[in-house]
Amino acid sequence: MKDNTEMALIEMLVDLAQRPADRLPDRARRLAEFSLLDWMACGLAGIGEPLAGKLRALVAEEGGRSAASVMGGARAPARAAALVNGSTSHALDYDDTHFAHIGHLSVGIYPAALAAGEETGTTAAEVVAAFLVGAETAIRVGRVLGAAHYNLGFHQTATAGAFGATVAAGRLYGLDAGEMQAALGLCATRASGLKSQFGTMGKPYNAGIAASNGIECAKLAKLGMTSADDGLMGLQGFVPTHTPEPDEAAGWSPSPDERFLFEDNKYKLHACCHGTHAMIEALLGAGALNGLGLDAVRGFMLRTNPRWLRVCDLKAPRTGLEVKFSYAWLAGMTLRGDRTGDDRAYTDALAGDSELAAFAQRVEVFGDSGVGDMQAEGRVMLGEGTVVEVAHDLDAPLDDDVLAAKLRAKAETLLGAHGAALWERFGQIDGQSAASLGDMLRRGA
Amino acid sequence: MKDNTEMALIEMLVDLAQRPADRLPDRARRLAEFSLLDWMACGLAGIGEPLAGKLRALVAEEGGRSAASVMGGARAPARAAALVNGSTSHALDYDDTHFAHIGHLSVGIYPAALAAGEETGTTAAEVVAAFLVGAETAIRVGRVLGAAHYNLGFHQTATAGAFGATVAAGRLYGLDAGEMQAALGLCATRASGLKSQFGTMGKPYNAGIAASNGIECAKLAKLGMTSADDGLMGLQGFVPTHTPEPDEAAGWSPSPDERFLFEDNKYKLHACCHGTHAMIEALLGAGALNGLGLDAVRGFMLRTNPRWLRVCDLKAPRTGLEVKFSYAWLAGMTLRGDRTGDDRAYTDALAGDSELAAFAQRVEVFGDSGVGDMQAEGRVMLGEGTVVEVAHDLDAPLDDDVLAAKLRAKAETLLGAHGAALWERFGQIDGQSAASLGDMLRRGA
Repeated sequence: MKDNTEMALIEMLVDLAQRPADRLPDRARRLAEFSLLDWMACGLAGIGEPLAGKLRALVAEEGGRSAASVMGGARAPARAAALVNGSTSHALDYDDTHFAHIGHLSVGIYPAALAAGEETGTTAAEVVAAFLVGAETAIRVGRVLGAAHYNLGFHQTATAGAFGATVAAGRLYGLDAGEMQAALGLCATRASGLKSQFGTMGKPYNAGIAASNGIECAKLAKLGMTSADDGLMGLQGFVPTHTPEPDEAAGWSPSPDERFLFEDNKYKLHACCHGTHAMIEALLGAGALNGLGLDAVRGFMLRTNPRWLRVCDLKAPRTGLEVKFSYAWLAGMTLRGDRTGDDRAYTDALAGDSELAAFAQRVEVFGDSGVGDMQAEGRVMLGEGTVVEVAHDLDAPLDDDVLAAKLRAKAETLLGAHGAALWERFGQIDGQSAASLGDMLRRGA
Repeated sequence: MKDNTEMALIEMLVDLAQRPADRLPDRARRLAEFSLLDWMACGLAGIGEPLAGKLRALVAEEGGRSAASVMGGARAPARAAALVNGSTSHALDYDDTHFAHIGHLSVGIYPAALAAGEETGTTAAEVVAAFLVGAETAIRVGRVLGAAHYNLGFHQTATAGAFGATVAAGRLYGLDAGEMQAALGLCATRASGLKSQFGTMGKPYNAGIAASNGIECAKLAKLGMTSADDGLMGLQGFVPTHTPEPDEAAGWSPSPDERFLFEDNKYKLHACCHGTHAMIEALLGAGALNGLGLDAVRGFMLRTNPRWLRVCDLKAPRTGLEVKFSYAWLAGMTLRGDRTGDDRAYTDALAGDSELAAFAQRVEVFGDSGVGDMQAEGRVMLGEGTVVEVAHDLDAPLDDDVLAAKLRAKAETLLGAHGAALWERFGQIDGQSAASLGDMLRRGA
């Protein structure tokens, strides 16, 4: 590989896109497999959401060649399947997050990888490898776009995600280096997605947009479409037009020859705001609190990063959705043994739960800039002056087997026996086809 | 209608979108009919372009319901037909231009209007009305985005055009006011398109993107998709995220109750850079030069707006494409009686034409900021001290019948008898169906 200063970012991405599977790091491949199964679980659990039904209706009415599976639907052309599956899998907002990319990788990229894999008849392992290079691409592009892009109002899941989806699909459609560069150039003029859609069906739609754009740009490049030489970083390319403060070096460092940034990917284990997860894990991790129940707790003092106070410290939630943004309610649920990992637990009735309302009076939340935004610290006061110190850091290393067990439990919570069956595939990916994964998505759960 | 200050731009656009056809201004409707036939002529002439074939291949391979006509192809789902037809009709870059919108209206909006019209079985007159409110929407949005949006690197044809396509399609799919607002909100997260694609197939693709996005967003809104309340102008909506200097008032003024800005739409009559058209018209308009030939001309001094010197003053073009950007070559062609309106005239051999090369030595081009960017002025020196002053202003009023005759001649130049047959429809739009227009597009020329 050339020295960074001699090579444009797009050249590195084209090189990365075509790297043989046996040169992809093992741990990153294993995590990509976690993401596959977690993405499928989130998607299958989202099939009943109103948004998902509307997108299925759009593409079912269009019809077309049965190339790729639609979650809870029939087969459809790959572009159409990617649009539906991206949107469906992000409907619950329970999928994985990459904090440096600033977005959700699986929901924009796996639908493109799987649809292209089904269309071209590849193995499931090839789909996983294609997702991995796509995800690494999206992270690199997301970092170059940076916080300034996000703060301006763009949604990296959709924007940087589309470049990842393009690479994943392009790899499976067999694009050569020139075609891959053209596909990324076409994606530069096709990618879109705004954060102001949050709270509406437009947010999950953004993930479908990324996936569908990826299929479209990869296929057009394969057909010989030309595009700007460097649509990403070139003069008036995607990056300079979409962020006031691009940082090209952020895409390069560390080089993927050294380390895949995808290894920092995080998984949601609770069906609520990610800003509350460190607190929930801190309470779950304190053995002394196990099974005590709420009555035994005289008080709970939480210290969290100040940025979260404006996000997830609702003192008196009025709906199930608002409970997902309430430290006090979630602390009570956790100590009571509620299933915080089950999206269906967050009913509107829960917001009126008198036991949780009473407990919430004993919770105090403090902003502390010494606590990182993936961390939580706190003190739980029991009877007779007993104090239990709790703390958790979501960024702390987690044993992969432990993570797999947690994700499997999440899938079972969401899908029951179907979730267990899904995770039976774990570690067996080498023997499977993309088509067999598609079969599972169409059948639903 | 409320006072401008009390009403959000999006409310005005929703109101405009639903205005009955008999409340649309007559002259604007007549020009919209010109645009329809000129758009169809450009599209039919573009069917053989490589880009067009690639897009037809994409959607033919996908297949699906025969809802709308593909130029030079079969019927396809409306989203697919809009993608192909937008790209195909912009392939020759010979379609209409609106200077205040900063872009091309027909190629992004008519493909959406016609596909929706075919799918819903409307009349051709309803397609024209839907295009007109869509075009007026795109102009208003384009003006709010402003020159800063264009200069940053965005392509209004694609970005503002998508909002116009959404309104046109939404009107024909029967969206109510709330659904139209949701469709515009969805378009805010879907619209995209960069100018850095110019010179590649990505430029015409941008028009297809706009048209396809319009169909998709209108259909999803009809299915009940929700979106940001004001995805256009609201907090972190499309406008604030896509221009450093938005100008909301520009969308309002003058109100469409007073005047449709679409009436300023301009049509290309020569298959070369729009910056050369005023010069060509100036030379054609000087009766004293008619039929003189090149040998009789001792010299030509042209004064043009300085902005064009960097665009279309190539002194020694090397290809047919470069001839389109050469005042000297085009002046020679015009005086010699070449068919500047025929795209096929611009061969690579023409760049080596020795007669034109010799004439180019006698042409001088001067930048003059007193000459507007739609104007040209010049002096043609004949023998014995005779000087012919020439001048033209593309913005000067042109009699509609004269314009119609010129556009009909353009269609005949591009398409022969098929172009004449196309213009036989002029003034007969009331008796026709959208399907009959589609039939003509599928058959090709």
